Amino acid sequence: MKQTNVFYQHGTLALLVPGLLSGTLTMKELLQHGDTGIGTGEGLDGELIILDGVPYQADSFGKVHVIGNDFSMPFANIHFADFKFLTSLKDADPEKFANAALSGKTNANTFFSIRVRGSFSYMKTRAVVKSSRPFDTLEETAKKQSIFEKHNIEGTLLSYYSPTLFHGAAVGGFHNHFLADDHSIGGHVLDFKLASGKLDIQLFDTLEQHLPVNNNEFMEHDFSKDNIADAIERAE
Amino acid sequence: MKQTNVFYQHGTLALLVPGLLSGTLTMKELLQHGDTGIGTGEGLDGELIILDGVPYQADSFGKVHVIGNDFSMPFANIHFADFKFLTSLKDADPEKFANAALSGKTNANTFFSIRVRGSFSYMKTRAVVKSSRPFDTLEETAKKQSIFEKHNIEGTLLSYYSPTLFHGAAVGGFHNHFLADDHSIGGHVLDFKLASGKLDIQLFDTLEQHLPVNNNEFMEHDFSKDNIADAIERAE
Repeated sequence: MKQTNVFYQHGTLALLVPGLLSGTLTMKELLQHGDTGIGTGEGLDGELIILDGVPYQADSFGKVHVIGNDFSMPFANIHFADFKFLTSLKDADPEKFANAALSGKTNANTFFSIRVRGSFSYMKTRAVVKSSRPFDTLEETAKKQSIFEKHNIEGTLLSYYSPTLFHGAAVGGFHNHFLADDHSIGGHVLDFKLASGKLDIQLFDTLEQHLPVNNNEFMEHDFSKDNIADAIERAE
Repeated sequence: MKQTNVFYQHGTLALLVPGLLSGTLTMKELLQHGDTGIGTGEGLDGELIILDGVPYQADSFGKVHVIGNDFSMPFANIHFADFKFLTSLKDADPEKFANAALSGKTNANTFFSIRVRGSFSYMKTRAVVKSSRPFDTLEETAKKQSIFEKHNIEGTLLSYYSPTLFHGAAVGGFHNHFLADDHSIGGHVLDFKLASGKLDIQLFDTLEQHLPVNNNEFMEHDFSKDNIADAIERAE
């Protein structure tokens, strides 16, 4: 049975910080937990977005690919889509988007997803450059990211919101990925202006947090020396 | 199917801090997620331990009761027992116990449970006193706790370990509850000396974190003003 109340997360943001970037879950395994999601590949290989069960990768060259079952990931979020219409928005920047996503509802203490379909007058994304072993830390990788910009593009922005309490495990606040309908731009969203679009929302009551317990590098790592919150703040 | 890799948590430690102590899950609902666990009742009504599917409450008068299906809780942990023998220990205080639970294995980055069955030369527990609406904060409640001590008692100590990253959501480090075989003492463990006993361990790769999204007090609470880590440190 598809559990539409569950937000599934493989890995943690914290394990990316010191560069524990081994792929520890395959796309085939991930897709057992949902049809809609975001993530990154081994070595921070691009930015992923999964829509209607199809996984896309926006790579650091600005190309969008459909990826296969064997593609492996250190970190991903996924859920089974059951969105409800929330509101329509015009001329919305990230702040207006966040206010609309949170206002009128009191969702800040739980996990939820927002899907925005519409026309964006501006979209700015980044895609990280894959690093090889020994993997870079998250901050080193973030310095090497590619930045992409487009004006007047139709597409889907997929957002996950996690409560502040879970920052470090998840990304506290909103974490947004984008895919243009024509696949001309995708990636981790840095900035945008929504000209006009429809926001759908799906609230979760359960976080299913899966950890890569069979990965020795993860299990043996001493996290006490990583300043996780600060590093995520600078890199995300 | 009973998933023995899953550590289920209802509520968070963080919601206890400001006194969000409404019972938001019944024992009947909780027992769908396991047969072994710990928790507390509405208003911090005593200390719970679930062994072999039977839920016991150690109340603030020092009595142990079997509790019913309708008993409701703001916070609980549970899992389906599938323990493996870890080691035998003699003359072990909490530090020696913690070293044995963590040594030889690299479990500190994931969730696990330890079950200790044996003879305790000393056991010191507490049980909180139930508060009524308006509920006390966790610190106020902790000041009113009852303390119990026993020497030379047989029983079961059930311990859950959570990684530091999840402190605030869960109890970072070890969280131990106890029940004497003769039910003469139980509760949240403050100190102990294990004369001789057997440690069993069960590792989890998944935290299933359930939040009380239908509870308006929880959903509307502003957690940004609660100093959660400090308050838990002082109260736990």
